[in-house]
Amino acid sequence: MVKVVFTPSGRRGSFAVNTPLLHAARVLGVDIDSVCGGRGLCGRCQITCAEGSFPKHQIESTRASLSPFCATEIKYGERKSPLLDGRRLSCHTLLLDDVVIDVPAESQVHRQIVRKAAEYRDIALDPATRLYYVEVEAADMHVPKGDLQRLIEALDEGWQLPDLRCDSRLLKTLQPALAEGHRGLTAAVSKAKNIIALWPGLREVAYGVAVDVGSTTIAADLCDLTSGEVLGSASAMNPQIRFGEDLMSRVSYVMMHPEGGEEMTRAIRQALNTLFAEVVAQVGGTLDDILEVSLVANPIMHHILLGISPVELGGAPFALATDAAVEIPAWELELTINGGGRLYILPCIAGHVGADTAGVILSEEPQCQDQMTLLVDVGTNAEIVLGNRQRLLACSSPTGPAFEGAQISCGQRAAAGAVERVRIDPRSLEPRFRVIGSQLWSDQPGFAASLDQRGVTGICGSGIIEVVAEMYLAGIVSEDGVIDGALRARSARIVATGRTWSYLLHHPDDDGAQLLITQSDIRQIQLAKAALYAGIKLLMDHMGTPHIERIRLAGAFGSHIDVKRAMVLGLIPDCALDQVSSAGNAAGTGARIALLNRGSRALIESLVKRIEKIETALEPKFQDYFVDAMAFPNKSDAFPKLFSEVVRPQPRVPEAISGTGRKRRRRV
Amino acid sequence: MVKVVFTPSGRRGSFAVNTPLLHAARVLGVDIDSVCGGRGLCGRCQITCAEGSFPKHQIESTRASLSPFCATEIKYGERKSPLLDGRRLSCHTLLLDDVVIDVPAESQVHRQIVRKAAEYRDIALDPATRLYYVEVEAADMHVPKGDLQRLIEALDEGWQLPDLRCDSRLLKTLQPALAEGHRGLTAAVSKAKNIIALWPGLREVAYGVAVDVGSTTIAADLCDLTSGEVLGSASAMNPQIRFGEDLMSRVSYVMMHPEGGEEMTRAIRQALNTLFAEVVAQVGGTLDDILEVSLVANPIMHHILLGISPVELGGAPFALATDAAVEIPAWELELTINGGGRLYILPCIAGHVGADTAGVILSEEPQCQDQMTLLVDVGTNAEIVLGNRQRLLACSSPTGPAFEGAQISCGQRAAAGAVERVRIDPRSLEPRFRVIGSQLWSDQPGFAASLDQRGVTGICGSGIIEVVAEMYLAGIVSEDGVIDGALRARSARIVATGRTWSYLLHHPDDDGAQLLITQSDIRQIQLAKAALYAGIKLLMDHMGTPHIERIRLAGAFGSHIDVKRAMVLGLIPDCALDQVSSAGNAAGTGARIALLNRGSRALIESLVKRIEKIETALEPKFQDYFVDAMAFPNKSDAFPKLFSEVVRPQPRVPEAISGTGRKRRRRV
Repeated sequence: MVKVVFTPSGRRGSFAVNTPLLHAARVLGVDIDSVCGGRGLCGRCQITCAEGSFPKHQIESTRASLSPFCATEIKYGERKSPLLDGRRLSCHTLLLDDVVIDVPAESQVHRQIVRKAAEYRDIALDPATRLYYVEVEAADMHVPKGDLQRLIEALDEGWQLPDLRCDSRLLKTLQPALAEGHRGLTAAVSKAKNIIALWPGLREVAYGVAVDVGSTTIAADLCDLTSGEVLGSASAMNPQIRFGEDLMSRVSYVMMHPEGGEEMTRAIRQALNTLFAEVVAQVGGTLDDILEVSLVANPIMHHILLGISPVELGGAPFALATDAAVEIPAWELELTINGGGRLYILPCIAGHVGADTAGVILSEEPQCQDQMTLLVDVGTNAEIVLGNRQRLLACSSPTGPAFEGAQISCGQRAAAGAVERVRIDPRSLEPRFRVIGSQLWSDQPGFAASLDQRGVTGICGSGIIEVVAEMYLAGIVSEDGVIDGALRARSARIVATGRTWSYLLHHPDDDGAQLLITQSDIRQIQLAKAALYAGIKLLMDHMGTPHIERIRLAGAFGSHIDVKRAMVLGLIPDCALDQVSSAGNAAGTGARIALLNRGSRALIESLVKRIEKIETALEPKFQDYFVDAMAFPNKSDAFPKLFSEVVRPQPRVPEAISGTGRKRRRRV
Repeated sequence: MVKVVFTPSGRRGSFAVNTPLLHAARVLGVDIDSVCGGRGLCGRCQITCAEGSFPKHQIESTRASLSPFCATEIKYGERKSPLLDGRRLSCHTLLLDDVVIDVPAESQVHRQIVRKAAEYRDIALDPATRLYYVEVEAADMHVPKGDLQRLIEALDEGWQLPDLRCDSRLLKTLQPALAEGHRGLTAAVSKAKNIIALWPGLREVAYGVAVDVGSTTIAADLCDLTSGEVLGSASAMNPQIRFGEDLMSRVSYVMMHPEGGEEMTRAIRQALNTLFAEVVAQVGGTLDDILEVSLVANPIMHHILLGISPVELGGAPFALATDAAVEIPAWELELTINGGGRLYILPCIAGHVGADTAGVILSEEPQCQDQMTLLVDVGTNAEIVLGNRQRLLACSSPTGPAFEGAQISCGQRAAAGAVERVRIDPRSLEPRFRVIGSQLWSDQPGFAASLDQRGVTGICGSGIIEVVAEMYLAGIVSEDGVIDGALRARSARIVATGRTWSYLLHHPDDDGAQLLITQSDIRQIQLAKAALYAGIKLLMDHMGTPHIERIRLAGAFGSHIDVKRAMVLGLIPDCALDQVSSAGNAAGTGARIALLNRGSRALIESLVKRIEKIETALEPKFQDYFVDAMAFPNKSDAFPKLFSEVVRPQPRVPEAISGTGRKRRRRV
């Protein structure tokens, strides 16, 4: 008997001399990957020898701890790629003496996938669909048995997958695959329960796609299910935009065009299929390589995708047709991935809080936080989640699409030419700004040349928030949101537009379009920010908490807005600035987690049931909070401090923080 | 508290005055049906009062045991049909005093369905798919919840159906159905697990179809899933006959025409769809009313139906693609019943012993017998099952289609004009016979007039067995199967045909065709009967039993052959004649049992695993038995007794039982 210790798990045991390392690892429960089941074909089970002599290529080595490099390993190197120095195939390496074996991260089945900076924590790789290679015993008249039953037994014996079922459409391919692979085949097994695809011989390609169906944009990430890596990404405009820019106008479209629902369903499914083809083409694969799709969407997109009329969602009281997670063969929704591929749609939380918010929760894990955490995902509605380890609340607040640049006179989507950053000099009231596609500020040399031929085209969501905040800080806009026409005397930027005043952010005779911030634009932002703030306040009320310890802003909104200015405007409640951060595309990340980690599906499904859903429309206080929150700066206690922080970079206006009341602020 | 006793179950208990009878029955576990869940709509829960005063229409009755006839019952009578005298709706009848309640058979959920004479025992009604009416609570913004979740909760609360899943295709119909039914709807639930169909309001129509896909004929029985009654039947020729009369020629067709497999799959599925439309039209229903199909077939039909190439089944060694039971949505095989309808295909037993034999076993229950029972189902192959409570063996024996009238020179299928009964006078060698479609023997007055215009057209399976047996008994055919040309001197019925002799059963100048029984026809019957007998003998060997106590003959073969003559020829082994009987269409009955009783599916699936499969092709003894069994009368010990029994009705030939050896027999 010899001893073996595996790192990093620290598992150890004694085995007879000549025990294969992979076998020892299995006995000890050490996490080592393998697709081929120890046949030296897949190369997933590579290890290195951390301590003990390691007789690579040295057949005559004395006191060797491991068996010498063998023919299978050499052949593997020739067939795929040579083993890195010190690497061995654990399935073909035998224990000879005491040894410490290191299992590198890439050889672990349940390895961690490192997430991007904005994301909260790593994902443990454990996808719902996995590949298994088996050799199926030949037909034997003495033991009459169906080939499917032989396959199922081989999968059980080789991979401990008991009681598998098989999609009926595969029955016709089974025997041809067995013949072509000389009884060796690879099965894709979903959730250790269903055989969903078969290939002759060894197959190692298994892709999944994580999809975020937004009202405006659909984004898809192609993931390697065996490594967790994101191999390709693509996004497309949601084709439903032609039925209405915002969600409610799409619902209205269906109300007025009874066939419109099916039309939209077809459009969204086609768009998904196009995206699938696009991402898989990026890695030279085919749609057949995609075995799994995981998807998040808001409730209306969710229903339309499932072919359910969204009309019910336009009324009140209303209920979703279903709020449970959906786990079905992908072809049931006419998705053209592998014929056996599966689709998982995360559960919805409540009427207007959809699977996208479930994705945000899966990504952000507020249920694991000690701090009272606020998650905000702003789209056409704002989805708001508040809570921590003890308790979670969620609601949706009708912000409208102003924060996305819609319903703003010169608003546009975040695309090249859109103003995204704005500063206004409080004395001269002159603006400077940056547009998407250029690294320069508008007052820097070469700015005009850095733009594309269309020049400055409009203002996007983050730009409109900044310009309104800056207008407020510069005293152009009063606490109650009125543009001060008296300033016309001080600056030609203040222009009369009908019976109200506007702020001219950009001259049309400069490069591009005229950008006017009108009184109506200010109102839209007031309404949107009041709705958001009232929703948050309502959750704080229900939670019984007077303050928030941590804020995570999801989506494009969260990635691009200037947190301080958002707080100045009162979009989000007081919170230490260093505790406010962007969560990136948290909904999409949630879809990716559900794709790569089976356990996360059960987790989010049970979590969603525990979340307390607050219906803003039913809360009389919501109206009060809404009205209160219309004003700038939102009666925030933290305002003076914040104000000073925002204004400090502009030392020329020290008077900004002196004085009291409306007058003081107007003079800033 | 008052006492109530339910008959026939004998369950009893005490309940508070004013307890509804249906509630009391549920508490006591008394089996009373209900679709509407106690709302007085479906009328399934009717009971009668066996003892106790019964104040029908007598509101003022003193000492009444049950509450008076109520408005709901009157309304039920007006809406559907008035309650029979003495009948009450147990859901709307309250306990007032001690009472004995009788639950009539038709009000029991698990009532017995009486089977036909040839069938072995009754079926307990417990179909896999059942209907449930529920009222689903309205949308409530205070309790945000999907309508599907509300439906699932209502089904769980009202019907104790926990953790139901719902077919994704129903999601789009759920909310419209809820609206149309004013939140009342009927759900079809498969196996207490999946919601497969939804209708607004109360729905009581639920049909299933039991199908027997034979090589030649496809037969379908439409059953009412709520009563077990057979409401309609239809059969059609198997359209695959155009690809080859017998199974192996169909396999050859696919070998030579690679596209042929798909063509046959389409043909069989279309034929099924046509039959479904036909049976359901018989009751004025639509395909949507069919919620379940249960099906038996031999392995080749089974594979072709599933879209699996049968080519593998033509080789050796071979394996079925699958031998497990198949339980799938019917549309996966393009069956056009209700979109959510389910298909159940019974398991196959071994290479050539198919789901049809599983049906025979389900119908005949050899595993419940004390007697050593032989089940024989003769088609193109003979499927043979032998056993009892202790042990079951099965094999298939390659009889070829001779017993079906194929490969016989003047053979034809059992249809009008085919000879089915034959007697030959041992002295004159003159035959008399009966044909299908006429009640008269050929020597009775008016026979010719009783035939249709085509007259006598051929000989069917039972006819060929009889004529060969009679030829043997009359001494025309020797023990080793040779037609004795010397008899030409005694009878013009013996005619020379090439180098061998034939027996002229019917003159062409009489009505219809010339029917010659040729030497080759005798050989075909010898080969077929030898194969059958050798298969049976092999199973007896493996069982270690020298004799059979009971024989059940399934299918058309079993219904029509003359048992004594079959035994004289040595088709079946010795057995007390009163223990040999027809099992009717046992395979089809098995399909019907699987349709109407869920438990039977698990039963046959586990039973099939326990059956010992004997592969005749691998048994050297099979050849020996086969050669031995070529002779008439098969060296049976029981022969003299049998012989006397068969011959006794013809007292003119007493010498038939004297003498010994071939000579004696030839003289008969």
